[in-house]
Amino acid sequence: MKKSTFTLFENYMRSCMEDSAHDREHVYRVLYHALAIAETEADVDYDVLICACLLHDIGRKEQFEDPSLCHAAVGGEKAHRFLIGHGFSEEFAEKVRACIQTHRYRRSDPPRSLEAQILFDADKIEATGAVGIARTLFYKGQVSEPLYSLDVDGQVSNGENDTQPSFFQEYKYKLENVYSHFYTKRGAEIASQRQAAARAFYQSLFREVDGAYRSGQPRLKELMECEEEDEDGI
Amino acid sequence: MKKSTFTLFENYMRSCMEDSAHDREHVYRVLYHALAIAETEADVDYDVLICACLLHDIGRKEQFEDPSLCHAAVGGEKAHRFLIGHGFSEEFAEKVRACIQTHRYRRSDPPRSLEAQILFDADKIEATGAVGIARTLFYKGQVSEPLYSLDVDGQVSNGENDTQPSFFQEYKYKLENVYSHFYTKRGAEIASQRQAAARAFYQSLFREVDGAYRSGQPRLKELMECEEEDEDGI
Repeated sequence: MKKSTFTLFENYMRSCMEDSAHDREHVYRVLYHALAIAETEADVDYDVLICACLLHDIGRKEQFEDPSLCHAAVGGEKAHRFLIGHGFSEEFAEKVRACIQTHRYRRSDPPRSLEAQILFDADKIEATGAVGIARTLFYKGQVSEPLYSLDVDGQVSNGENDTQPSFFQEYKYKLENVYSHFYTKRGAEIASQRQAAARAFYQSLFREVDGAYRSGQPRLKELMECEEEDEDGI
Repeated sequence: MKKSTFTLFENYMRSCMEDSAHDREHVYRVLYHALAIAETEADVDYDVLICACLLHDIGRKEQFEDPSLCHAAVGGEKAHRFLIGHGFSEEFAEKVRACIQTHRYRRSDPPRSLEAQILFDADKIEATGAVGIARTLFYKGQVSEPLYSLDVDGQVSNGENDTQPSFFQEYKYKLENVYSHFYTKRGAEIASQRQAAARAFYQSLFREVDGAYRSGQPRLKELMECEEEDEDGI
């Protein structure tokens, strides 16, 4: 790919992501993960791969504004339209669209081409390790969801079987289980190297908050009970 | 403190924090940390301590809406007004106000009473360990600041000497240095037990993102250079 073509795609990506430095960082990391994976695969179409990586999240804004929309579907269509409008071939635009449309983790239709599978794995790596933790916490802040829920006894729930959204619920529902089912060997290796860091963080966070409630609640209860017997207390 | 008095303070805190489950969780953890510290100190006024803990962040909304305001100063005044309005003594209201006004980490006037020092330490514990990391990332999401900045060579900056706000900048500027200067021995101990988890997370996150840029950028450059020589390329 020529530098000028790269810049064309990059500028379009930046224009779609407006002022979100966070989302742009993610796009470059996905591109770098994809190139790391591609090195271990044969016959990669780098033009398709690089273009698909750069444009894979350009439908995010539409999904954010209307959650019934899927950013992968919207992004695929936007990329196709942009490429045709800039004189790229229908074949190229179609290949890029297919990659983008199937990159989403929970999506039912799987990535079929090698480039689509590499993009899928590269994007999935972003849900692993410390980066996966950081991005999830960042997102929870954006949408104002709590770190954890309390169970019926007022203790911190570890997220398992939670029905209310929280960081721990997301960890148990998604982040903990993201290390299997990669399409590429290199993708699975990179993910696996990061697994311990994510698990250690979750365990530390749970231990810290759970410990605070477990020791604090009985102390508080005791103080209240003493005071109920003391009529002078406030 | 009577259960009914606790509930009065608790309800006022909840009304000031509106729908922020995240902020409320923090308040209960600060209260539990404070009770853990208080157990190791003599002659603690638990009424003042519990009230100050519950109400210590009730000025957050005002500061969020007008960043020139200090939530500790606003919160202290609000608490004082609330307590006088509900028939508590001027002496009690004044003690609570003083605790709240001096609880802020970066504030120049230090906490003076034992209860103020316990609240200060309990709140500072919330900047340590995995909880400190989680709360900072959550906040960065709320205000849309990035995880890291790039240096002049396009590499990931570790946050040291950064001028632009980011998670790494906040880690180096604040989180990394929060483990010293506690007023209470128990506060310092709790903080110290959490230090390794925070450091490990920062190091993992830096290694993951820095590694992606360091390996990805030369690969990308090489692909561009090959292609510049190939006139058929896109």
